[in-house]
Amino acid sequence: MRKLHDDFRLRFYRNFLRIARFPIVPIAIVICMSVFLIAATFESHQLRNSFRQTTPRKTIIIITPTYRRNTRLADLTRMANTIRQIPDLHWIVIEDGETRVTAVERMLNRTGLPFTYIPAKTKPGYPRRGWYQRDTALGYLRNYTDRITRGSREAVVYFGDDDNAYDLRLFDEYIRKVKKIGVWGVGLVGGVLVESPAVKDNKVVGWNVNWFAKRKFATDMAGFAVHLNVILNNTAVFGSSCKRGAGAPETCLLEDLGLTRDDLEPFGFNSESRELYVWHTKTLQGKYDKSKMELHGFVVE
Amino acid sequence: MRKLHDDFRLRFYRNFLRIARFPIVPIAIVICMSVFLIAATFESHQLRNSFRQTTPRKTIIIITPTYRRNTRLADLTRMANTIRQIPDLHWIVIEDGETRVTAVERMLNRTGLPFTYIPAKTKPGYPRRGWYQRDTALGYLRNYTDRITRGSREAVVYFGDDDNAYDLRLFDEYIRKVKKIGVWGVGLVGGVLVESPAVKDNKVVGWNVNWFAKRKFATDMAGFAVHLNVILNNTAVFGSSCKRGAGAPETCLLEDLGLTRDDLEPFGFNSESRELYVWHTKTLQGKYDKSKMELHGFVVE
Repeated sequence: MRKLHDDFRLRFYRNFLRIARFPIVPIAIVICMSVFLIAATFESHQLRNSFRQTTPRKTIIIITPTYRRNTRLADLTRMANTIRQIPDLHWIVIEDGETRVTAVERMLNRTGLPFTYIPAKTKPGYPRRGWYQRDTALGYLRNYTDRITRGSREAVVYFGDDDNAYDLRLFDEYIRKVKKIGVWGVGLVGGVLVESPAVKDNKVVGWNVNWFAKRKFATDMAGFAVHLNVILNNTAVFGSSCKRGAGAPETCLLEDLGLTRDDLEPFGFNSESRELYVWHTKTLQGKYDKSKMELHGFVVE
Repeated sequence: MRKLHDDFRLRFYRNFLRIARFPIVPIAIVICMSVFLIAATFESHQLRNSFRQTTPRKTIIIITPTYRRNTRLADLTRMANTIRQIPDLHWIVIEDGETRVTAVERMLNRTGLPFTYIPAKTKPGYPRRGWYQRDTALGYLRNYTDRITRGSREAVVYFGDDDNAYDLRLFDEYIRKVKKIGVWGVGLVGGVLVESPAVKDNKVVGWNVNWFAKRKFATDMAGFAVHLNVILNNTAVFGSSCKRGAGAPETCLLEDLGLTRDDLEPFGFNSESRELYVWHTKTLQGKYDKSKMELHGFVVE
């Protein structure tokens, strides 16, 4: 009886040991380490960047014309400080000049943003107001789209001047959500504190502007963004003049892109207390006689 | 013989099972999860913030006087966008007014920075140029130091106006390294492109300024920062006038704090190509008749 009992226990222990012999501890460690590694990777790449959304995030392409002036490095520094915080953003900077400027190139590198910096001196016949530089950027974007978007066509194009003031929310709450063409209010422009589309039932029905409200698109450069596909399906540029805009170039580009008022998506009109996310600021230009000035080795423009 | 052998194996299995019965798998999981949690905490708190340095980082205290004007929200937005990226920074904002302004308070909250926002309307006899507000901040800092520094005395105080342009490097490369009083070049100020201390062998020997170079401390408000202990060991304020500065208040405060030229630590003079990290920019104030303007629900000043 005892022998039988011992045999039974032996068989039991043997079976149990077959399980226990299975290298369960190393396997548990490997599983835990894998979980840790996956979680850590997930934490750093996903949670920080794209976990909040279900579809891949659109790229924001900002086109900024710029030119040498006393206040340029200060202005561009403030803009760089702002947009360097926006993920999935490509900055196209076009210099009104024969060559790239070293101080600007170093600043662009410091942002950590992907960028394209091209010199394009204004051609005779164009006003020196950034029109030629924006057209150069549109041409580059159409010819070398993949260099900018890395193959994706989910992108929105915004014309951001280097002396404007931008609220961080402009980029993710407005620009990145544009499906065809988005429009919103702009501060300190056109002789008024606010210019904006006139919106009824979430539709644009006109323009709340003081100056030439009859333009089809009476918006400032800072007040709209266009989906990349609208740019790519067309060859429209700003050109060297815009009679329909009485000199303001925005309506010519938007009309020539084939857009209509029904295409306009208004942003920022859903709350009673409406906030401005962009201001058309200008930095005061002092008068400096550089020839009479000792610069003591400092880099200035 | 077989019985003996079986007995031996039985004893062996029993002993083995005593180990195998020990809840090694749950314990391994608990250990792995602990390692994961510790590593994740370490990653997020240490690596990102203070792993790179051996001593605790000094706090930067920025004192910013501000007042209602058309361009204020735009200016303050750009400054907030810049300094929100600087760790261990406390922002003291003093409103020249009877009450706090909601739009400013919301903006400060959005920065994620620790801040103190106090209304202090300029008293009669003071110029309306931020002097009274900076003095209010100095008083608050002396009376409620621990609310700002959380017990530490390792902090540097900088007077940062809301319309200046700041390079991100100003904060960690210059301000945070100040031991007693640091000085550096400032762009677009005093009628010249650059004002700076004159430096020889890493010592300040004078001032490269165009306007009233005979001041003991011929520096703009944006061109210096002072260690907190210098402020706390003294009761000096800007006051309501500064004859020694011919109206510019900086030299009066610094002299009254008991500082001498030998105390000055120059920053930014070690390379051939010297870069400006701060500009005394001014934003152009348009003329707007608010009474004649329809604002369509937008928040403006």
